[in-house]
Amino acid sequence: MQLIEQIETPALLLDRDKLDANIRRMGEKLKAFDVVLRPHVKTNKCLEISERLFAEGRGPITVSTLREADFFLEAGFTDILYGVGIAHNKFAHAATLISKGAQLKLVLDNLETARQLVEFARSSGYRFEVLLEIDCDGHRSGLSPRSPMLIKIAQLLGGTGVELCGIMTHAGKSYDCKSLTEIQACAVQERDAIVRARESLSEAGFDLSIVSIGSTPTALFTEDLRGVTEVRAGVFAFFDLVMAGLGVCREQDIAVSVLTTVIGHQPEKGWIITDSGWMALSRDRGTAKQAVDQGYGVVCDVSGRPLQDLIVSATNQEHGIISSRSGRLEPSQLPPLGTLLRILPNHACATSAQHTGYHVLANNIRKVEYWPRITGW
Amino acid sequence: MQLIEQIETPALLLDRDKLDANIRRMGEKLKAFDVVLRPHVKTNKCLEISERLFAEGRGPITVSTLREADFFLEAGFTDILYGVGIAHNKFAHAATLISKGAQLKLVLDNLETARQLVEFARSSGYRFEVLLEIDCDGHRSGLSPRSPMLIKIAQLLGGTGVELCGIMTHAGKSYDCKSLTEIQACAVQERDAIVRARESLSEAGFDLSIVSIGSTPTALFTEDLRGVTEVRAGVFAFFDLVMAGLGVCREQDIAVSVLTTVIGHQPEKGWIITDSGWMALSRDRGTAKQAVDQGYGVVCDVSGRPLQDLIVSATNQEHGIISSRSGRLEPSQLPPLGTLLRILPNHACATSAQHTGYHVLANNIRKVEYWPRITGW
Repeated sequence: MQLIEQIETPALLLDRDKLDANIRRMGEKLKAFDVVLRPHVKTNKCLEISERLFAEGRGPITVSTLREADFFLEAGFTDILYGVGIAHNKFAHAATLISKGAQLKLVLDNLETARQLVEFARSSGYRFEVLLEIDCDGHRSGLSPRSPMLIKIAQLLGGTGVELCGIMTHAGKSYDCKSLTEIQACAVQERDAIVRARESLSEAGFDLSIVSIGSTPTALFTEDLRGVTEVRAGVFAFFDLVMAGLGVCREQDIAVSVLTTVIGHQPEKGWIITDSGWMALSRDRGTAKQAVDQGYGVVCDVSGRPLQDLIVSATNQEHGIISSRSGRLEPSQLPPLGTLLRILPNHACATSAQHTGYHVLANNIRKVEYWPRITGW
Repeated sequence: MQLIEQIETPALLLDRDKLDANIRRMGEKLKAFDVVLRPHVKTNKCLEISERLFAEGRGPITVSTLREADFFLEAGFTDILYGVGIAHNKFAHAATLISKGAQLKLVLDNLETARQLVEFARSSGYRFEVLLEIDCDGHRSGLSPRSPMLIKIAQLLGGTGVELCGIMTHAGKSYDCKSLTEIQACAVQERDAIVRARESLSEAGFDLSIVSIGSTPTALFTEDLRGVTEVRAGVFAFFDLVMAGLGVCREQDIAVSVLTTVIGHQPEKGWIITDSGWMALSRDRGTAKQAVDQGYGVVCDVSGRPLQDLIVSATNQEHGIISSRSGRLEPSQLPPLGTLLRILPNHACATSAQHTGYHVLANNIRKVEYWPRITGW
């Protein structure tokens, strides 16, 4: 047990009570539907947090790198969906995971990679499980739910060492919504796309055991998941300013923050200089396109209460500049040198990735544990 | 020895020949002046690279975190300037470094911290060396070169366990220049500010052994360093697109790049999807304010030659979207699935920080070593 004041700054804080409440909220939401939660552990990359995502045992997870798959398999998570399109130069790594007991699911969206994987399965003797990626909103990867290519790939895989076990999509556009109504429209669009793709494959004689959707905004505001078997989401456990700006959570639900120290003042400019630059906060500016631009993060006192309308307005590598959104701070408003502050992050995944672990707080005040994160590929 | 094709992507590549040429260039430039180079190792955070910065032995270095100081001291670098304003909650860490043999220099720019350090020195028995930070261009921290506070702090420190050994400044504004003429004007402004501060302290009876300036653009284009004793710079060893956009280097001088794999196509949009998102490239958008916005990086073939005008136009955590700046790529122009590409980074410090080490290439083609980086605080 340690006081916050004993933590060297900058440091990533995790409020364990908020984390648990956020996890409960998603659990409660999904209870109304006949779906499995396959949380995305890319947000946390941490064993202790990923364990808390499940009421018991080690359920199915989504990973963004094969390094995460290695790490979580080692820790006893076996049902793993690697959510980024596979390419041939990762087949051998995937095979190693399968040889160690992973029920690994790979994702692809094109015939060429499917052919290469079939050939690799044939020559290596490994069996692979595959999900086809569906594009529900044009934001990134995936095939249109009406694309004839879906059937072509399914036909190519039939009878080979590569089993087509499902389809998946991600409503990435939901991050750009301006209202909960828009998020709900994204949720409808996401479900419609995946259900249409399932029907198209079903009519061609391909039955799928996994029909997977997911994004934190759509998962928390969907009203209909008929035809969907599982939901993926990651940032819901932490939340962040982008999610708060969307109306998906409140600022006080954000479970991660960066502890920082005031190291200087520029009184003529109303600036507070801190030891948290982009190395500690990340360069993420996800709120720049929202109604309220939060700079590089919202400034709170050491207990986590936002201070007026202070934001981190600029960053260098290890320096942050804090200023007021509404005007220049008076010299008397500058917190004393050495004051501890907390910065709420724009994007929890990006900010957490700048740190090697979490200083875990209980009752928002005492550090009770340090939970390490993994990094790399 | 390994072929590039055997490296799992995404991965950070370092061209050793370009690194050495960039280091030689800075050495040649500074030969004309009576100054010491105190390179900033925050860019590389790597022992093997920092060793190459010196023709022999382990010269003076600048660090951006006390974690770097710990690491480089352990490796035999003793003369260390911690370039971020110190605060009282790091005094004990600094003292530990001194107790282990570091000739550590701390930076401060205010009376309150000076008082606290004097008190800590008195009660702990440690002796500290301090540089006062001068603000030469209004971009961040530091005191005006004409500020009477400089003398006040110097007077406060006199006869205590805290020795005022110098002054330092950083021409951060040089990163925003639009021409070499502007950079040269920044260099003049940087030197003028530090020389004025030195004169002011000298007139008050305080003689300084260190008069330190530094930024890569000003260091490479200065024409006058009279009165300056040392130069700090970091990114010169790697270079990046921001530096190329400034005209400080050519694209072909950039020593670091991210190796990536084509994992998908969106032919109707002319998009190439890769496995390098912001986790591998960083969220840095430093070229956004330059004449040519390079998105999240310039796309090269596997040998490092830029491909038409392709840039990484968007990123998610582990996905990059490549498109053409001049128009939509035709389906026939999309490189085959599985193709390896290299991405030149906007900001070498930020991109390198997303990786745990460097895959070192000799003759631009063969991986000969892996050099680890440190992270954290």
